[in-house]
Amino acid sequence: MKALWFDGRSIGERTMRRPSPRGGEVLVRVRLAGICSTDLEIVRGYMGFRGVPGHEFVGTVEPPAPRRLLGRRVTGEINVPCGTCALCRAGLGKHCPRRTVLGIDGRSGAFAEYLALPAGNLHLVPDPVSDGEAVFTELLAAACEIPERVRIGRADRVAVIGDGRLAAMVVQVLALRTDRLILFGIDPAKMGAIAALGFETRPAAEMSSRAGSFDIAVECSGSPKGLPAAVSLVRPRGTVVLKSTFAGPARWNPSAVAVDEITITGSRCGPFDTALGLLERRRVEVLPFLTAVYPFERWETALRRTRRRGSFKVAIDIGA
Amino acid sequence: MKALWFDGRSIGERTMRRPSPRGGEVLVRVRLAGICSTDLEIVRGYMGFRGVPGHEFVGTVEPPAPRRLLGRRVTGEINVPCGTCALCRAGLGKHCPRRTVLGIDGRSGAFAEYLALPAGNLHLVPDPVSDGEAVFTELLAAACEIPERVRIGRADRVAVIGDGRLAAMVVQVLALRTDRLILFGIDPAKMGAIAALGFETRPAAEMSSRAGSFDIAVECSGSPKGLPAAVSLVRPRGTVVLKSTFAGPARWNPSAVAVDEITITGSRCGPFDTALGLLERRRVEVLPFLTAVYPFERWETALRRTRRRGSFKVAIDIGA
Repeated sequence: MKALWFDGRSIGERTMRRPSPRGGEVLVRVRLAGICSTDLEIVRGYMGFRGVPGHEFVGTVEPPAPRRLLGRRVTGEINVPCGTCALCRAGLGKHCPRRTVLGIDGRSGAFAEYLALPAGNLHLVPDPVSDGEAVFTELLAAACEIPERVRIGRADRVAVIGDGRLAAMVVQVLALRTDRLILFGIDPAKMGAIAALGFETRPAAEMSSRAGSFDIAVECSGSPKGLPAAVSLVRPRGTVVLKSTFAGPARWNPSAVAVDEITITGSRCGPFDTALGLLERRRVEVLPFLTAVYPFERWETALRRTRRRGSFKVAIDIGA
Repeated sequence: MKALWFDGRSIGERTMRRPSPRGGEVLVRVRLAGICSTDLEIVRGYMGFRGVPGHEFVGTVEPPAPRRLLGRRVTGEINVPCGTCALCRAGLGKHCPRRTVLGIDGRSGAFAEYLALPAGNLHLVPDPVSDGEAVFTELLAAACEIPERVRIGRADRVAVIGDGRLAAMVVQVLALRTDRLILFGIDPAKMGAIAALGFETRPAAEMSSRAGSFDIAVECSGSPKGLPAAVSLVRPRGTVVLKSTFAGPARWNPSAVAVDEITITGSRCGPFDTALGLLERRRVEVLPFLTAVYPFERWETALRRTRRRGSFKVAIDIGA
């Protein structure tokens, strides 16, 4: 099969054998694969991964497979836990220290014609949901995790920090819980795309004049300045949700967290079923954030486009 | 009356008029006043306060006063909220943006023969509780706030980072909830005093080998390194309680908070009634941590002693 391979220093095309499904795993023929910031970090060598990157995908299940999956369109959860450790037994398999992670850690990923995942990781994509929409499932699920971790009421004033693809999902998911929502961003084009869906967007420079005026702030900018900004936005006893990871350290005095008794909650991967349900019932719009789709052969352009200012989600059409 | 006065640059003795109680306030004749790290920051000019510092005290209520208080021994909560703003109406008066704070912000403090506080701020000191014990009430209350904010079960493994006076209170309060408690410190003498009460203490250098092995970690070291250390100590979905404030910024990459879905909860002042109840019922021991008591005239020695390595709580006997 054709695949992209990262050897620790550079990424390139390679023809290789299809992954061999192990016990409980099935083979998925990849249709569309999304590019995520984590992939950009991987191909810079920041994650210590070697192999086929890519973890956002929609594909078709190949035989042999359980009847409910065979030949069906699926997307899949990326963490493959050991199933036996204390965290797995506590239902926290996504934190299993021995887990592999599709295209990120110890498992060949989605920038290839085929990938293998346990059948239990796969979710059927409902017919009304297109490939271009389904490729957002993993990202949208990460946004859906926020109300799973933090109670958000109709009267809560919520700030979203960031204007990228994750922020575009977060603002839509949280809008299902509250109308009192403001997104702070820095890129006028991206903020315009989000505002076009009816959301209030403000320049990040205005955050300093809004100190203490939100009940909840969600950091999804990926900037090291985002967490201190989020802490300053919330009222005493307010809640900060940290969705971002950061490439470098932040310089920051966290005293306000103690003085104002603020709670910071980290949040990562989320529920795929919830995300696919929102896509099927048209409760969120993702296609305005599908910036471009490139055929496999144009993968270099796809990576470059993902890095470019103003880009949301870029995908590679593996089946093309 | 005699008092200590900080003029923004230096602290010294001064003879001044007694504070005039306003509506609802009563006059308290101070018996014993404790010195806290915040006081050391104030006399270095770091807090922007001018006036009489000091906020930990036990004293006797002077007339005129409500009958339940008159002539009685009391200690008092330090925040005096406006009573009318949104936070006050929500029961969060300790976060009122217009509050004054005894000896810290806009209100003359306890390093004086008399102080004034609203009657509602005062708590009777039970007869079996000595002055030397009662002066720990505010500090012990801060420790009692932790189980108010975070659920701690018998099976929870808890780490306490720090070996100072606050850590000595925290470890005792949390020991009422769990036996699986380890304190990490750096000062052998202070750790010895805490270990003498039957607690397991370990050098902070051992923290790196204990990564991910606690359900809850409480930072009360006051070191900027304490928060990153606490985050690394807890398991995925674990909880960090931040009790410390810090003089300077920390350099830190908070990505692990998102990846491991950790919750950080800031916590400040706590319930005086709970603390006084623990003192009365002898559920905690505080006198091993009363390093020294000096008469008012030796206030300079008292401040110096507080700063000295190996010191826990130092108090000034104002009545002496």
